[in-house]
Amino acid sequence: MIKVNKMQNTSINNMITPIDTKKKSSHNDGINSLIELTAADMEKVNDLIINQTISKTDIIPKISRYLITAGGKRLRPMLTIASSLLCGRKNDNHILLATSVEFMHTATLLHDDVVDDSSMRRGKISARMLWGNEASVLVGDYILGQAFKIMVQSESLKALGILSNAAAIIAQGEVMQLSSVKNISTSENDYINIIESKTAALFAAATEVGGIINDRPEKECVALRSFGHNLGLAFQLTDDALDYNGNVDTLGKEIGDDFNEGKITLPIILSYKKSNSDENKFWNNVMLKEKRTNDDFTQAMLILEKHNCINETMKRAKYYANLAIKALEIFPESEIKKSLIESTIFSYNRNH
Amino acid sequence: MIKVNKMQNTSINNMITPIDTKKKSSHNDGINSLIELTAADMEKVNDLIINQTISKTDIIPKISRYLITAGGKRLRPMLTIASSLLCGRKNDNHILLATSVEFMHTATLLHDDVVDDSSMRRGKISARMLWGNEASVLVGDYILGQAFKIMVQSESLKALGILSNAAAIIAQGEVMQLSSVKNISTSENDYINIIESKTAALFAAATEVGGIINDRPEKECVALRSFGHNLGLAFQLTDDALDYNGNVDTLGKEIGDDFNEGKITLPIILSYKKSNSDENKFWNNVMLKEKRTNDDFTQAMLILEKHNCINETMKRAKYYANLAIKALEIFPESEIKKSLIESTIFSYNRNH
Repeated sequence: MIKVNKMQNTSINNMITPIDTKKKSSHNDGINSLIELTAADMEKVNDLIINQTISKTDIIPKISRYLITAGGKRLRPMLTIASSLLCGRKNDNHILLATSVEFMHTATLLHDDVVDDSSMRRGKISARMLWGNEASVLVGDYILGQAFKIMVQSESLKALGILSNAAAIIAQGEVMQLSSVKNISTSENDYINIIESKTAALFAAATEVGGIINDRPEKECVALRSFGHNLGLAFQLTDDALDYNGNVDTLGKEIGDDFNEGKITLPIILSYKKSNSDENKFWNNVMLKEKRTNDDFTQAMLILEKHNCINETMKRAKYYANLAIKALEIFPESEIKKSLIESTIFSYNRNH
Repeated sequence: MIKVNKMQNTSINNMITPIDTKKKSSHNDGINSLIELTAADMEKVNDLIINQTISKTDIIPKISRYLITAGGKRLRPMLTIASSLLCGRKNDNHILLATSVEFMHTATLLHDDVVDDSSMRRGKISARMLWGNEASVLVGDYILGQAFKIMVQSESLKALGILSNAAAIIAQGEVMQLSSVKNISTSENDYINIIESKTAALFAAATEVGGIINDRPEKECVALRSFGHNLGLAFQLTDDALDYNGNVDTLGKEIGDDFNEGKITLPIILSYKKSNSDENKFWNNVMLKEKRTNDDFTQAMLILEKHNCINETMKRAKYYANLAIKALEIFPESEIKKSLIESTIFSYNRNH
């Protein structure tokens, strides 16, 4: 395990190096150069994705492609490609591993939607609403099986170890989150632990394997892992904040989803610490209820804004984004490195 | 893929070599010698299972151990151990792979119970009834992740390829079964395809890797694969038959489970082919209903018995069991080979 410092609240502002956040980026602006530099390889990844979801059954390619082609940014596989390019890309194994990473992510999404009873995903009706929970569980299992089959083809035991470890950690993070769904007293530390597992673990594995398959020295692989890990945290915390103030058209899901599902994310955790007894009573009642109403959401937003919790969540996202950028320092300057830094800034400087 | 002949109905009786089936074996009799010969290694597998389900969360070890220690026969990991012993066991990799095989199976059971709404598993209340569908899905994912982590430790890319391929095929078989749940006109061939994927694939992988990790010639690995594949089919078909006439105390689940869940298994498929129009009308109505009553089950049993469908299913189980035994012919006589043959006979000559 790499050592990642847990952020101390008192020192956040000091630790954030200045980044121009005045101009909110428009759709994909900040990751355009990453998209361009990885485009040729991502096309191969896309071909492999289509090819590997051909199956004896109708429903497997239908569900897989419905979800995979639903317009996700494919940030994770792009990170594997970019990390391999940063490390001199010796062979085409990064295509295989990037595809595995996307499949691992897709399988997680399918199961997440079942567990969370979600009705929307990536701006479309979720697969489970169209084909049922049963098919979503089983097709998720199939896609995960394909992920492992493809990564075995890379013949890199080290990469296999990293990715299979991530698979177990992600599932553990989801279980941890399930246990905390109705636990309003989840601490900030516990919460960071959860998102380290459920989000950052795959980002970290996706970037680390880029170094591994190019036989780079341990120092570089650890740096890549740290980059992915911290970027994953920044990405997740931004998602948590956007769930309370994002743009519903570009976000691809409904505002207030986390709240409606009773998910305790960082904005609420921060608020609970700062709230007066009436406000805490509200949180206790509202998060334990079977369902939350629009009025509940309005009230929640008032308290979150009063205590500046959405901005505070974004501050933490920026903190981790800066750690991610710092981790890349050991690599010489290059176009691909520049694009990774820009994408990291974009990870928190987005509205969707 | 190995080539396995689909059984032709007309030639079943000719192809079955005589096996003494008069004496129904008592509990575990037929696999006692397999259990004894693999006991020392299975103890190591059990230790590894306990060790690998330790987790940051309470619920992961609880669910894993609840299911894994619920008294299943652990036939699949035992087959990996036995296959490796048959092949001269060069190292301890069979412990790792046997544990992976059991984990893959456990993950499938957890997800199956969710998909099938099952209330019982291995004679106990199913995990999903105690901890919910959500936890069962996620803990299943975690256990599958652990399965891959452990198999990577064997450092055998060939074994990894075989097992990860099996994982995808199993899930595909489950999806195929899901599509046929309410399809009364599923053909015998389609049905054999389903159980080849959902059951035989893991048996085949479990036995084949025993040869692979001992660097045995391809001929032996193919023979082991064929042995496992056909044993898996015999095992599943016997399960299908027992679901209509097994002993509820030793079976560990309720009689009529498949029927109640609307699962079209071989006894019904055979009956549908032989039934008169009134009987076919019954099957069409009863399997499409939301729920089936006890009276429905009684009526189903009458038709199945009239057309001898449970015995016919058992005949097919014997057919595949004999193919399995035949596959072992290339191995020299030994105690472990004898125990595998006895276990194969037991696979269909059991009442639970």
